[in-house]
Amino acid sequence: MGVVGGGSVDEATLSTAAGLGRAIAERGWVLLTGGRAAGVMAAASKAAHEAGGLVVGVLPGRRGENGVADGVDLAIYTGMGDARNVINVLSADVIIALPGGAGTLSEVALALKSGCPVVVLGRDVIEAFERWGTRGRMQRASSVAEAMAAVQALLDAR
Amino acid sequence: MGVVGGGSVDEATLSTAAGLGRAIAERGWVLLTGGRAAGVMAAASKAAHEAGGLVVGVLPGRRGENGVADGVDLAIYTGMGDARNVINVLSADVIIALPGGAGTLSEVALALKSGCPVVVLGRDVIEAFERWGTRGRMQRASSVAEAMAAVQALLDAR
Amino acid sequence: MGVVGGGSVDEATLSTAAGLGRAIAERGWVLLTGGRAAGVMAAASKAAHEAGGLVVGVLPGRRGENGVADGVDLAIYTGMGDARNVINVLSADVIIALPGGAGTLSEVALALKSGCPVVVLGRDVIEAFERWGTRGRMQRASSVAEAMAAVQALLDAR
Amino acid sequence: MGVVGGGSVDEATLSTAAGLGRAIAERGWVLLTGGRAAGVMAAASKAAHEAGGLVVGVLPGRRGENGVADGVDLAIYTGMGDARNVINVLSADVIIALPGGAGTLSEVALALKSGCPVVVLGRDVIEAFERWGTRGRMQRASSVAEAMAAVQALLDAR
Repeated sequence: MGVVGGGSVDEATLSTAAGLGRAIAERGWVLLTGGRAAGVMAAASKAAHEAGGLVVGVLPGRRGENGVADGVDLAIYTGMGDARNVINVLSADVIIALPGGAGTLSEVALALKSGCPVVVLGRDVIEAFERWGTRGRMQRASSVAEAMAAVQALLDAR
Repeated sequence: MGVVGGGSVDEATLSTAAGLGRAIAERGWVLLTGGRAAGVMAAASKAAHEAGGLVVGVLPGRRGENGVADGVDLAIYTGMGDARNVINVLSADVIIALPGGAGTLSEVALALKSGCPVVVLGRDVIEAFERWGTRGRMQRASSVAEAMAAVQALLDAR
Repeated sequence: MGVVGGGSVDEATLSTAAGLGRAIAERGWVLLTGGRAAGVMAAASKAAHEAGGLVVGVLPGRRGENGVADGVDLAIYTGMGDARNVINVLSADVIIALPGGAGTLSEVALALKSGCPVVVLGRDVIEAFERWGTRGRMQRASSVAEAMAAVQALLDAR
Repeated sequence: MGVVGGGSVDEATLSTAAGLGRAIAERGWVLLTGGRAAGVMAAASKAAHEAGGLVVGVLPGRRGENGVADGVDLAIYTGMGDARNVINVLSADVIIALPGGAGTLSEVALALKSGCPVVVLGRDVIEAFERWGTRGRMQRASSVAEAMAAVQALLDAR
């Protein structure tokens, strides 16, 4: 289960990310993130690991170049910078997007491009993307529980 | 000068892409596109080449996997799929974005992420991105001439 | 622990690969391979998984493009073709190389380039590489047990 | 025409690289190298540019991260580290390999993997690779003139 979101976000988003990490671990899913020791990646990774989940981080740098989030069990070093965003998106069954900046936006766009379903956990984002003709390929959630339900429905429908 | 935009767009956008290609060639700039034989890439490449410009296409596939746009003088084959979007964005001085889908959106997002200036030649796009906190890092243009002026101002300001 | 080797190899090499997979799992190490359902990758993955190990496969294609080896617990899809060889090499603590072709050779070369230690489990290879000035950066093993001892020594020395 | 070789080589190799760059430019071919301001890349790029050729450099880093060789007319920034070696190999019609280290070796191996013909301008290398079962897929040259003749024959045979 891929989780994307900003490296620098507010407390509420960090709390949501942690809740999401726990929920993913409790369902027995692997958590896949960008692996860096910042923001959504860090909060979700720590919470998922503490809840007994397996956490994979696909990092932009080489070993030692980026801090790795606490809780990452398996670090995949790509040395490819933002090109690693493609890997997260291709490897996840579903991407859950929390608030973030341009990097997060690129991951959502790449997910839509590759046909990976996206669940957005935050406001405004869907409206923005719908202007680009992506209507119907993204689902809205307003809580962790709603996001989990949307993810489960996507998995069931395959 | 990087030009991004959809592989499947309307006639008006194709016409704008061709005008942009000509304008870039006339200024003596190298045109950098995604290189495929479709939509904005194809229209801009053909026009720039016919106007005597040098056209570089950075392709997602290996040799023979994707059609290459007429007018591409130098084909760079990456075999990396959408990860090649990163290369376009890192190699261009400025990205000019025409209407497109999720692929175009990912290129705009990656450009913003990497600090590459973006000039948007189309409506609605800036509004969408401003919701993601990118205000001030994108400029709006409503014609080829306005886009060229914005690009020149960016180059002059460096 | 990274294992590289050919997709089309003889029975003896397949048997060695399986022994290596088992030995890695028994030591509690994660096995990292190229993930395809062929040759060394397949034999090592299946054996490591059956011995209770965690097996990660970093695949060249997108989901559905390449067959995934039985035993792979976590498939990382890159869509980047041979560029994914770099990821294997950057992510492994040590690379153990079995006989293979040009792909295997590229992984050994990339490992040497990035400073990742290489243990070669097979003949002739070290001699070939030593002609390229890599003397002293590769270690020779002639059995799974010797390879494991060399790997442990490398890990202990860090 | 791709030229690969070490970033730190002896004077004789630098001189050969310059001769190769000139010969490529004189035939009207585009020179494709790794673009860095070092060794074979730098010597070939400078000579080809001075002889009026078009020189493309596919760089491992982002803009400003690596020095760019004098003479590079078009810099393609990948930000992908050694993964960019794959791009050089996929984009060239033929790879001409001069002496180098593990990076050069990885480029030769990736070329063989992808089916790109390789002309080796130096000793010992073919023997090393033949041990890996690549016999017949590489050609030997002992001078710039011989390398050019081999390249032309490969192009004529397509």
